[in-house]
Amino acid sequence: MKNLQDLAKLIRYFILLSTTQAGSGHPTSSLSAVELMTVLFFDGIFRYDLENPANFNNDRLIFSKGHASPLFYALFAAAGAVSEEELKTLRKFGSRLEGHPTLEFPFTQVPSGSLGQGLSNGIGMAINAKYLEKIPAKTYVLMGDSEIAEGSVWEALQIAHHYKLNNLIGIIDVNRLGQSTETMTSHDIKTIANRVASFGWEVITVDGHSIPQIQKAFAQAEKSKDKPVMIVAKTFKGHGVSFLNDKENWHGKALNQEQFKDALKELGKIDYKLRGKILMPKAVKTALKKPKTVKMTPYEKDQKVATRKAYGDALTCIAAMHPEVVVLDAETSNSTFSAKVKEVAPERYFEMYIAEQNMVGVAIGLSRVGKIPFISTFAAFFSRAFDQIRMGQYADANVKFIGSHAGVSIGEDGASQMGLEDLAMFRTPLGSVVLYPSDAVSTEMLVMQAAKHHGMVYIRTTRADTPVLYSKNEMFPIGGSKTLKSSKADVLTVVGAGITLHEALKAYVELKKENILIRVIDLYSIKPLDVKTLIKAGKETKAIITVEDHFEEGGIGEAVKAAVANESVNVYSLAVTKMPHSGKPQELLDYEEISSIAIIKKVKQLLKK
Amino acid sequence: MKNLQDLAKLIRYFILLSTTQAGSGHPTSSLSAVELMTVLFFDGIFRYDLENPANFNNDRLIFSKGHASPLFYALFAAAGAVSEEELKTLRKFGSRLEGHPTLEFPFTQVPSGSLGQGLSNGIGMAINAKYLEKIPAKTYVLMGDSEIAEGSVWEALQIAHHYKLNNLIGIIDVNRLGQSTETMTSHDIKTIANRVASFGWEVITVDGHSIPQIQKAFAQAEKSKDKPVMIVAKTFKGHGVSFLNDKENWHGKALNQEQFKDALKELGKIDYKLRGKILMPKAVKTALKKPKTVKMTPYEKDQKVATRKAYGDALTCIAAMHPEVVVLDAETSNSTFSAKVKEVAPERYFEMYIAEQNMVGVAIGLSRVGKIPFISTFAAFFSRAFDQIRMGQYADANVKFIGSHAGVSIGEDGASQMGLEDLAMFRTPLGSVVLYPSDAVSTEMLVMQAAKHHGMVYIRTTRADTPVLYSKNEMFPIGGSKTLKSSKADVLTVVGAGITLHEALKAYVELKKENILIRVIDLYSIKPLDVKTLIKAGKETKAIITVEDHFEEGGIGEAVKAAVANESVNVYSLAVTKMPHSGKPQELLDYEEISSIAIIKKVKQLLKK
Repeated sequence: MKNLQDLAKLIRYFILLSTTQAGSGHPTSSLSAVELMTVLFFDGIFRYDLENPANFNNDRLIFSKGHASPLFYALFAAAGAVSEEELKTLRKFGSRLEGHPTLEFPFTQVPSGSLGQGLSNGIGMAINAKYLEKIPAKTYVLMGDSEIAEGSVWEALQIAHHYKLNNLIGIIDVNRLGQSTETMTSHDIKTIANRVASFGWEVITVDGHSIPQIQKAFAQAEKSKDKPVMIVAKTFKGHGVSFLNDKENWHGKALNQEQFKDALKELGKIDYKLRGKILMPKAVKTALKKPKTVKMTPYEKDQKVATRKAYGDALTCIAAMHPEVVVLDAETSNSTFSAKVKEVAPERYFEMYIAEQNMVGVAIGLSRVGKIPFISTFAAFFSRAFDQIRMGQYADANVKFIGSHAGVSIGEDGASQMGLEDLAMFRTPLGSVVLYPSDAVSTEMLVMQAAKHHGMVYIRTTRADTPVLYSKNEMFPIGGSKTLKSSKADVLTVVGAGITLHEALKAYVELKKENILIRVIDLYSIKPLDVKTLIKAGKETKAIITVEDHFEEGGIGEAVKAAVANESVNVYSLAVTKMPHSGKPQELLDYEEISSIAIIKKVKQLLKK
Repeated sequence: MKNLQDLAKLIRYFILLSTTQAGSGHPTSSLSAVELMTVLFFDGIFRYDLENPANFNNDRLIFSKGHASPLFYALFAAAGAVSEEELKTLRKFGSRLEGHPTLEFPFTQVPSGSLGQGLSNGIGMAINAKYLEKIPAKTYVLMGDSEIAEGSVWEALQIAHHYKLNNLIGIIDVNRLGQSTETMTSHDIKTIANRVASFGWEVITVDGHSIPQIQKAFAQAEKSKDKPVMIVAKTFKGHGVSFLNDKENWHGKALNQEQFKDALKELGKIDYKLRGKILMPKAVKTALKKPKTVKMTPYEKDQKVATRKAYGDALTCIAAMHPEVVVLDAETSNSTFSAKVKEVAPERYFEMYIAEQNMVGVAIGLSRVGKIPFISTFAAFFSRAFDQIRMGQYADANVKFIGSHAGVSIGEDGASQMGLEDLAMFRTPLGSVVLYPSDAVSTEMLVMQAAKHHGMVYIRTTRADTPVLYSKNEMFPIGGSKTLKSSKADVLTVVGAGITLHEALKAYVELKKENILIRVIDLYSIKPLDVKTLIKAGKETKAIITVEDHFEEGGIGEAVKAAVANESVNVYSLAVTKMPHSGKPQELLDYEEISSIAIIKKVKQLLKK
């Protein structure tokens, strides 16, 4: 107990030291959770191999309230893994200790800083431990009370309960003060506890600055048989320093040198050499799953198969080939065809219900512990999780996103269900790959590529049945393209993908009847682009016409124009520019002028120039 | 009572008629809520002027479960406002009756179809009625149980309770069956009720097919003094037809002709001529608020003012000039400076806490009832609400979004807080306007433009202080630009915006010392672009160099390249391409090669070509 109190004091010192030196940061948000985390780390609860952050038996700790990074770093300093000198580099360019935890710091389980995402990440890790690896590792997630206004937290609460994740322990640091104002719940611990309990969690309330109460809480949490556990702790922002404790207007502010000195005086005698021990994890082996070899789905040329259906077929293949593949869906699995994987690997399918934000967060968590998540919903609904997708790029997320029901060509359901901005969205993350297969064979090949590729991959699938174009032996490298029609007499190049590639082929047939030959390129890889092929085609023909079932902004047309800028290649773009509506798929493609009729019209118009 | 039963039967007929004719749609999801909505509409609870959907005294009805559109249309048909003939046009191209309700249908309060957003929209309308217009109009929101997995619903529950919206009544149609699977809660009405009650709502549980219970529930709901009310109804999907009732695998499926005949047989004798009456709303005048004239903020040239701070100043002006302006923020108002409006119009500021999805939904709701919402948070965090933003384009949303802390130049907080994809995101909605002012004067002018412009507007603001560039008399039309440096000897054009415009000016000064003259354009309007000026500059100089504190994809560079494609204008782009980190703003701008150093380097490199 004395040791824990002394460690808490040391940690408070580290928090104030680093932030004062940085001249910025969130000391008061860090101070409120000191006792909570000190007990977790140094009282034999948390099990972690400091020498080996990648040890899969490690317990997991996620600072969902990422702005409390000074506390996060201070804990590892108190464990002897970070020097006091390094603490003074907080927030400096080149330091491992960034403003919010990133992967630069080896002990960061998953980067945070966009509130409300950590619990979802934790679910991914807990699902992995309980159901996939079957290891006793626990996942702890520290959240703030202001943070739990985020709906994603309540999505996570539902899912964690549904999956009986008793190896997931959340801690809410209820310090009542947000950034600009008091939270909606203030210090009403009872209301917060009741809400969490109503979602099926075991809830333990504590005085967040009472070490004995916190010890008791973690001991009780250990015993949960089938419920996730939430410790709801009443705390004070800035606790430990009288002029900070529970004071407004201190969020995100560092102390100046004088205030720092005053704070140190209040802390009293600090044992700067004191370090705490963290218990080692139990060494538990997991059964290595063996990959199986599988046959590809035997599609026949011209057979009509929707690429969304081909995704389902492909999943059955890669699930066998890659034991690390895990499949998630947001209650659309009979539409996205992700449900097909349940035929071969039901233990690796996890229904995520209508909660896309949580689904993406869970996938990122699974990715952080070595799984390869393939996650699906309608393309339009991935927009619900753009912030989680955005954070994925900072988490080195090896997550594959499959968005079905792309474009106006979904038909009668209408605009709300149409993905028309998904390519733009998924093009933005650093290093993301964006693929848009036009037939079943290429879909299967690209899904296999996605499984082998490390990084975030988005695959866009089509609702309608479309003819198989390719033979089983064709390769589809990421960054490649397919030139389906080509001759020395091509007057223009038409670049399509997905449904519009088929419209381009229809246009080819019609134009050929009038002796007009066009080059047709299947741009299945939208990021990275096959720039060489595009430039070549642009120079060998009069111009490139891009056609996409997607808005203009950020889509295929803009990507191609950017890629061939300065190459003296002309590019014209057909895209969705009018308010979409319900209707038959072909009616809508015609209406939006992205069908074969529109392509033919554009070709003829350009030939007159 | 008999009348209500007969109307319910008629409505069931209308649902089956329209969807069978369409060959698609969601009849079973519609059938489960028939009694609930029949009582609401025709038992004197709902007050609505059918001749005048824009009557601001109307009660509001939102079908958050938008796929139950056949029920929505059937209700208005039963009220005599839609013919049986028109019902048969459901989902047809050109019909007002789209797959999910759109504004094509005059009685649609707000379009829906992306689940979990309607309650937020309803909050906007309820806030308007209770606090702004001070009228007794009520807002009713119908939700599904599968839908309430969406976190946005729980954000809304918190906020509605916080604002004591007793004029907001939610109805959850708990029919236990989702799209592909049973919901997590099945028919556990008690758990759902407890959860909602724990969020501070008054909860009434009912048998959703018992007209007397429903009548009692609505009567009780009327009496709520300060709590929003939720009716949690146990229902059966497909109720009213035995082979549909509570049956799996019927989601989103229409009956065929034979099944339709069988269903009609079960319904028995239908009075096809029966119509129900809806009560008229009470006519309550609201006090017309008078606009006030205000003076613009007296900025001095070269005075250092962050554009985010200028936003706060501008808000105080437009709040006075436009009584319909309402201000929302997601617990960042001291950072975005939206808090400043509380100095002049505190009654029009509503804190939305850390729940961006709900904030955007509330804004769309406010917009639908004639308000002009100005809503703010960090640019990065608007990505949390991309699905709501996406739906805004279908709702004719007159919402102005202000995203602060744009780019890597925010500095030490690091990547999670940096808006690097917000321009790409906000460029995608049809007809959106995207503005990025570089100084305080243009910020104020553009905020005023935004207030006058009808439609979605995004304004990107900068964290750092930057010098005032413009005088008070300058105009900043949407779609315009400012050429700050220009001569007949300009070798290259540098296009910047926000922080990079200032980097471009620094580069100008340095290059001029070496007798290299560049044109400098402030591209404050990113959508629509000032294409004429860009082409002119591109032709009069060697090339355009765009510089942005934003990712490449979907950003300024791509927008400009798309705009000048085929004009023989060369465009080179500097943007954020490397993993961002904590650091000083200037360090990060240099590291990402978007600073004056990088611009100078690019200029010199291009001059060698």
